Amino acid sequence: MEVSYQRKVNFYETDAQGVVHHSNYPRYFEEARGFFLENIGFPYHRIREELNIDIVLIELSVKYKHPLFFGDIFNIETKFNVENRYFFYFEYQVVKNSEIVSTGRTRHCCIDRQTRKIVPIPDLLV
Amino acid sequence: MEVSYQRKVNFYETDAQGVVHHSNYPRYFEEARGFFLENIGFPYHRIREELNIDIVLIELSVKYKHPLFFGDIFNIETKFNVENRYFFYFEYQVVKNSEIVSTGRTRHCCIDRQTRKIVPIPDLLV
Amino acid sequence: MEVSYQRKVNFYETDAQGVVHHSNYPRYFEEARGFFLENIGFPYHRIREELNIDIVLIELSVKYKHPLFFGDIFNIETKFNVENRYFFYFEYQVVKNSEIVSTGRTRHCCIDRQTRKIVPIPDLLV
Amino acid sequence: MEVSYQRKVNFYETDAQGVVHHSNYPRYFEEARGFFLENIGFPYHRIREELNIDIVLIELSVKYKHPLFFGDIFNIETKFNVENRYFFYFEYQVVKNSEIVSTGRTRHCCIDRQTRKIVPIPDLLV
Repeated sequence: MEVSYQRKVNFYETDAQGVVHHSNYPRYFEEARGFFLENIGFPYHRIREELNIDIVLIELSVKYKHPLFFGDIFNIETKFNVENRYFFYFEYQVVKNSEIVSTGRTRHCCIDRQTRKIVPIPDLLV
Repeated sequence: MEVSYQRKVNFYETDAQGVVHHSNYPRYFEEARGFFLENIGFPYHRIREELNIDIVLIELSVKYKHPLFFGDIFNIETKFNVENRYFFYFEYQVVKNSEIVSTGRTRHCCIDRQTRKIVPIPDLLV
Repeated sequence: MEVSYQRKVNFYETDAQGVVHHSNYPRYFEEARGFFLENIGFPYHRIREELNIDIVLIELSVKYKHPLFFGDIFNIETKFNVENRYFFYFEYQVVKNSEIVSTGRTRHCCIDRQTRKIVPIPDLLV
Repeated sequence: MEVSYQRKVNFYETDAQGVVHHSNYPRYFEEARGFFLENIGFPYHRIREELNIDIVLIELSVKYKHPLFFGDIFNIETKFNVENRYFFYFEYQVVKNSEIVSTGRTRHCCIDRQTRKIVPIPDLLV
């Protein structure tokens, strides 16, 4: 399953090189993950509140091929993969005008919000 | 009482106009407030944990006279004022090379971290 | 003329008090201004490139009445006002579930992108 | 050569999970790189202005082992490595109380600020 999230570059996301600062891509990915979870009917704030679970990000990688500029409209194509009972990851392609400008991957697990201990991936995500 | 906090502009704080984005000044002010509270012997994380209080920001104003650039070293001169039993404010002067480049003011109150209700300013701040 | 911009709170905009950090409101206002300029047919990146003008923010004020939380959907009602030949301002109301949770105001002028000198407000904005 | 950069967690860097949001680590790494370049006598704003070069980040990876909290003081141990005539990378260890809480790596090249074309690594960095 792949979900596509559309976004426009805000001015405050640019830097003095005139392009989107690299630290915003993890934030774009977070938005795309949120959109993905909404699409499968379980928005993250419901996961937090109803299941008492925080989704924790434990690994992040990004490859930057081409820059994004202020005002650009781009899409993030997001895929979800289960690794095992505890770990899962998302893969992202940032696409502008049909060209892949960046790719990324984030690895996650779930923790109990009170104990902060790792718990199995909730069934609704598997 | 006035406390001076020194800071250097990070690259990620600049925008495509080549200057520090205006939204970073409230963050600089927060750092300066934190430094002020440390200077009077009560860092904010101790206020949060020992007094069970969150300091809430309820008003913010900033005047931008001259820009800050990447690599600039500047100072924030911070003053603290009590308004009444519940409200207080900080005033800031952002100074670069003896010139005031920006001024600001933030108004605050204290709330109980559990009930989220307003509580009187703790004695140690008055 | 008033333009309403809808937005959802991202997780990365929250802080350890569990609410949207106050420094994000100036960023929301910037998005709302951008949306306003698009609505009148002249998006900011075109102003920058075609008129060779940067819109500079010279004053900012915000009043925070009620917090915003992760996942909240809110609107920013934006009004534009000309002060004189050189200065103009925007006024914002942040509205969640028909309640005003925050208000703000930003004052601006236009500068030439090369000389960085102030220039009159372009006709299309007046 | 290894350079250690000390930093304190700002409140605005935390999120509603009560810890530093993962998107701030790339910003911490940028600060640590800047500190490294200063330590070898060539701060980045001089590289930009005197050599007319932008250092571009083309790959980023981070592993998050333990969280950072508001008020934490931590160090980033930074190493620099040349890959070949065009590419180089930095490696980072985020250390709190003698424990590694996070590691990261960024890969870079240099571009001409006007043409935006890749250029060889300047001699002073090799």
